[in-house]
Amino acid sequence: VEIAILLYEKMTALDAIGPYEVLGGMPGAKVRFVAREKGIKRTDSGYNLLNAEYGLDEITAPDIVLVPGSSYPQATMRDEAVLRWLRDVHAKTKWTTSVCTGSLILGAAGLLQGVKATSHWMALDGLKKFGAEPVKERFVRDGKIITAAGVSAGIDMALTLAAIECGDAVAQSIQLMIEYDPQPPFDTGSVDKAPTAIVERLRASLVAQNLE
Amino acid sequence: VEIAILLYEKMTALDAIGPYEVLGGMPGAKVRFVAREKGIKRTDSGYNLLNAEYGLDEITAPDIVLVPGSSYPQATMRDEAVLRWLRDVHAKTKWTTSVCTGSLILGAAGLLQGVKATSHWMALDGLKKFGAEPVKERFVRDGKIITAAGVSAGIDMALTLAAIECGDAVAQSIQLMIEYDPQPPFDTGSVDKAPTAIVERLRASLVAQNLE
Repeated sequence: VEIAILLYEKMTALDAIGPYEVLGGMPGAKVRFVAREKGIKRTDSGYNLLNAEYGLDEITAPDIVLVPGSSYPQATMRDEAVLRWLRDVHAKTKWTTSVCTGSLILGAAGLLQGVKATSHWMALDGLKKFGAEPVKERFVRDGKIITAAGVSAGIDMALTLAAIECGDAVAQSIQLMIEYDPQPPFDTGSVDKAPTAIVERLRASLVAQNLE
Repeated sequence: VEIAILLYEKMTALDAIGPYEVLGGMPGAKVRFVAREKGIKRTDSGYNLLNAEYGLDEITAPDIVLVPGSSYPQATMRDEAVLRWLRDVHAKTKWTTSVCTGSLILGAAGLLQGVKATSHWMALDGLKKFGAEPVKERFVRDGKIITAAGVSAGIDMALTLAAIECGDAVAQSIQLMIEYDPQPPFDTGSVDKAPTAIVERLRASLVAQNLE
């Protein structure tokens, strides 16, 4: 199974690397990190961290495509070469997936018309302008499109996808390999659980970044 | 606060990127991805994925050092340049940390003598030969050394460290930003919870990789 993970400038690294570590553990998996131009991409925190080994024209028929998010997805949402590539590969994929605001990029490519989808909690409403039906879940499957909520949700989504593709035992083995037995120190990982003051402060700072 | 994250050939990407996404969210955080030689490093699955912007000699006094693990940590455990660098920076760090088999590298550097520490469940016993006292916990703090269990445990460890450094509200805000409200599809993320057959099969495959 060939898995294409899109990289781009100012992306959120964990959106890609969480699912990579899970999906890459499936037997026979080949992961292709692909970008408009191959080479090193900056993260949304400004680090020259992630390297794309492939350009878009080199990856034409992945079984699974995964689009990570970003605190600044706007430039990629307007990148016609990327959007065209997404439409082209989506026509042939078995699964088209996103993490965090990656769903806004799928939406900008026109792939979410009438589709139930999710995104980072801050960006959920933004899905509507692409004709998607926002759903506040950890991840949402609608046909062959699976969209995950913010950043770390990609790990849960990828484990579920591994189970669908390879069976529960394989997914459970991957989960044990990455020792994914989460013990977060706080219960503030969703907008419904975090203290209101923290939600509002974060919302204000992200609005300042023009995420909405 | 300057955070040095060691990169090296055949490392596990998520070991580094989970904590990066958390610790990099602390106010004023500067993350330095550092390797013996700067440039792109292969992951343990063979992908030329992660880029080190700095060489060892450029990073001399980080406040926090983080050593990720690998399915094949042996070469780095014998890399005298890396081990010497770890000893040098550890003498000045506020926190010296590891994820997964990164603790074996700390051990090889001689930093775990008489220290309570943890590692990936498969590698826990391996800590003993470095004079460490293995503890089966999600992460273990002993003085200024914090070691985390396998791969994904680095996220929990980093959130706790962010809370110690910057207070609970900052850590909770980071947790909300990365929407870390884990909902794993299975409860098989620890060796005590996974089905015995899966534990034994994975153990056999990892022993074949010579992790133990």
